[in-house]
Amino acid sequence: MSTADGIAIQDRFLPDMTCFGCGPANAKGLLLKSYQADGGRTVAEFTPWPEHDNGLGFLNGGIIATLLDCHSATPVLVAAHANGWVAETGLAYVTAGLDLRYRRPTPLRETLTILGELSVSSAEEMTSHVWIEWDGKVRAEADATWKRFRPRS
Amino acid sequence: MSTADGIAIQDRFLPDMTCFGCGPANAKGLLLKSYQADGGRTVAEFTPWPEHDNGLGFLNGGIIATLLDCHSATPVLVAAHANGWVAETGLAYVTAGLDLRYRRPTPLRETLTILGELSVSSAEEMTSHVWIEWDGKVRAEADATWKRFRPRS
Repeated sequence: MSTADGIAIQDRFLPDMTCFGCGPANAKGLLLKSYQADGGRTVAEFTPWPEHDNGLGFLNGGIIATLLDCHSATPVLVAAHANGWVAETGLAYVTAGLDLRYRRPTPLRETLTILGELSVSSAEEMTSHVWIEWDGKVRAEADATWKRFRPRS
Repeated sequence: MSTADGIAIQDRFLPDMTCFGCGPANAKGLLLKSYQADGGRTVAEFTPWPEHDNGLGFLNGGIIATLLDCHSATPVLVAAHANGWVAETGLAYVTAGLDLRYRRPTPLRETLTILGELSVSSAEEMTSHVWIEWDGKVRAEADATWKRFRPRS
């Protein structure tokens, strides 16, 4: 896996984050680690846990959504930091929507590759395209829309 | 909560299912329980676990997706059984896609209400509309497309 500096994007930008899917500080979470790769992409690998079953021996759709949602943050984080679009809390963007398509059964007992790239970006809103591959085939893919997060007072 | 017979839809139709979100036989899963309610709707309540944080003190988007995906199965299950569209494995449909919108922050430390209803149905494909409410407001909503599952030989 090609990486810019060998440090996961989550560990570099959000080391104290407790997000269930990707927070380095959530010991009971999935601890997704994503890296910068060639061509402006980000890449992660993830091996599901036995309890992530969908009931048919494949990966649960909600866990697929969690992986894609969290991985979709990583091109956003990289672009936000490159452009200075950052917040004091560390996380300047939140997901507004996720359009998810399940293409093929996603295995439960294999290591999956998750890829992502930015499709649209501005200071106010970014969209990432993310997908899960195994055995050379796309298993699920999503477009995630991230909007600038402004805490409600 | 109004229910047809007091038995959760998952317990009635899929008692041996190991799905992470709603399988009665997955002790490490979320164990979502959904019930038939008035007006053809289905309803569930769920209290998130502390580790389901999104990193900002609200519910993680992937767990939201899991709850909505699994709950979206329940109007499909009820309709499938009412029409005799069932499979020997118990689960005759799988999610083909989920179009998810995060409307407002979803609390992490409250009991959420999840509602669902069928919007389109045929033997081959059904669509459910599902949403999470708390404090009288929609927090997230999704349209889920379920297609007839035919195992690949």
